[in-house]
Amino acid sequence: MKLFCAAADWGTTHFRLWLLDTDGKVAGTRSSEQGIMHCQPAGFRDVLESHLDALFAPADLPVVICGMAGSRQGWVEAGYVDTPAALDDVVRKAASVPGSGRQVFILPGIAQRQPSAPDVMRGEETQLLGAFDGKTGDVLVCMPGTHSKWVEMSAGKVTGFTTHLTGELFSVISRDTILSHAVAGSTFDETAFAQAAARALEDPGGLTAALFSIRAGQLLGYRDQSAGRAELSGLLIGTEIATARSAYGGAAQVHLVASGRMATLYDIALVKAGCDVVKIDAGEVTRRGLWQAATQLLGARQPARIS
Amino acid sequence: MKLFCAAADWGTTHFRLWLLDTDGKVAGTRSSEQGIMHCQPAGFRDVLESHLDALFAPADLPVVICGMAGSRQGWVEAGYVDTPAALDDVVRKAASVPGSGRQVFILPGIAQRQPSAPDVMRGEETQLLGAFDGKTGDVLVCMPGTHSKWVEMSAGKVTGFTTHLTGELFSVISRDTILSHAVAGSTFDETAFAQAAARALEDPGGLTAALFSIRAGQLLGYRDQSAGRAELSGLLIGTEIATARSAYGGAAQVHLVASGRMATLYDIALVKAGCDVVKIDAGEVTRRGLWQAATQLLGARQPARIS
Repeated sequence: MKLFCAAADWGTTHFRLWLLDTDGKVAGTRSSEQGIMHCQPAGFRDVLESHLDALFAPADLPVVICGMAGSRQGWVEAGYVDTPAALDDVVRKAASVPGSGRQVFILPGIAQRQPSAPDVMRGEETQLLGAFDGKTGDVLVCMPGTHSKWVEMSAGKVTGFTTHLTGELFSVISRDTILSHAVAGSTFDETAFAQAAARALEDPGGLTAALFSIRAGQLLGYRDQSAGRAELSGLLIGTEIATARSAYGGAAQVHLVASGRMATLYDIALVKAGCDVVKIDAGEVTRRGLWQAATQLLGARQPARIS
Repeated sequence: MKLFCAAADWGTTHFRLWLLDTDGKVAGTRSSEQGIMHCQPAGFRDVLESHLDALFAPADLPVVICGMAGSRQGWVEAGYVDTPAALDDVVRKAASVPGSGRQVFILPGIAQRQPSAPDVMRGEETQLLGAFDGKTGDVLVCMPGTHSKWVEMSAGKVTGFTTHLTGELFSVISRDTILSHAVAGSTFDETAFAQAAARALEDPGGLTAALFSIRAGQLLGYRDQSAGRAELSGLLIGTEIATARSAYGGAAQVHLVASGRMATLYDIALVKAGCDVVKIDAGEVTRRGLWQAATQLLGARQPARIS
């Protein structure tokens, strides 16, 4: 086995690293909570090297990184490619990290520079590269998360996208509002989730009121505390889907890039919304996107560096 | 001057007390952060008596209380009057607090026992009593706050209402999400507020996406950080107003029960929504509502207690 590169997904709160061989297969992996928030004091290079060391990576193994490590608060600012953004351009405009002792590239994000609908992504462009490189038709993509993205692609370009604060709203509402009393149950009631999602799909404008009704419904004995967490999740996800579908013309087919429970929940809600869902594993396409970028960036130039 | 009673607005995080003379005029006032959260360990009676002592209130002066002190987590549970709720019934069903050493009444809240739209209020019923007692026509009331209420009244009864989580959403979003970076400015830009409110009035379903666009707009240089706080406020208030107006038939006249900056902001947004706004001071009607309740509860029975 010959190593080709290391690939890292370096976000705000998480760090994930893969060693990839010349066939793109995983030769080693690491993950930690050393997101960029953690690295601002500790130093990005030290964090990266400690994980490469732990995997006995050669000193000249190149590294390709995506995510918030390329933001202004990151290691080196990697800028943005503007919409309509060709995925190839994302790779072509990778920033090289000086003084890192080895070749390190950070992929840029994508920016939608529209004063009426400004938006940015950083990390998702790499997943899109992993999932849709070479795809020429029109695609609508749903990428759930702390900051959920809905992305419209056409002829291999990202033509438009919208970020919803869904995941972050779920966190702060369940932790720090009156609803913290209403979501205390440890179970997750999928029926309650689906009902709440259906309610939000019908009335996405009713979110701020529907939230309080979860609490009031429990106080008045109509609803069980064990359903609260699922209802909150259903309302937020249903609102996101309804809004996104109306923004993007109600396309029948939606590519869902997610993993774990988020994949299950968005699938349920998207089907309720009448979508034909194509499921794509989020972790898998991040790695594949980094691999695509690495072969493009290093392919011709780096044969000597393969150990 | 003869004292008639003490009146207290006792919420989750605030305590406010007035001594009222036989004409309902204010003879003394106290306020503190000793809301019911504070009193669960300290004891409700001790907190109340310490404030009465500080105002040299006679030992037999009766007290009428509204707010969360009547909730399950409060001093004595005062229950709810169900919609359609006559404001007189709110007073008639006041709970008497045993063992308090003086006459103490706590007013009940109002409950909307509808499985599809369950809702509760506690405190606002007293403001409604102070503002609309004796009013016989149809009234639509907007009561901004941590949990904003929109209330429909007809022939002196509360026929329906809806609570929006607006104020609490503003707190947690501005403090604990990615938007905390976007609302750091100390100024409040009223033009930005009005524009954001107008945007939300047109598209109340777009809230979760519009929130992120505040941050993205700043990152891409379209918007100033000093406008972020006002934009967040405008989006949330605009969304609330749009939803409430469509729920309550788009009545032209809205009675706004608010004070301070909330009164100013809701007034701006309601006018943008095409409403004819009648402004009512929130603090004033709380006191007046408690006074109305006191005269009804104590009027005939308590002449000896007037000092």
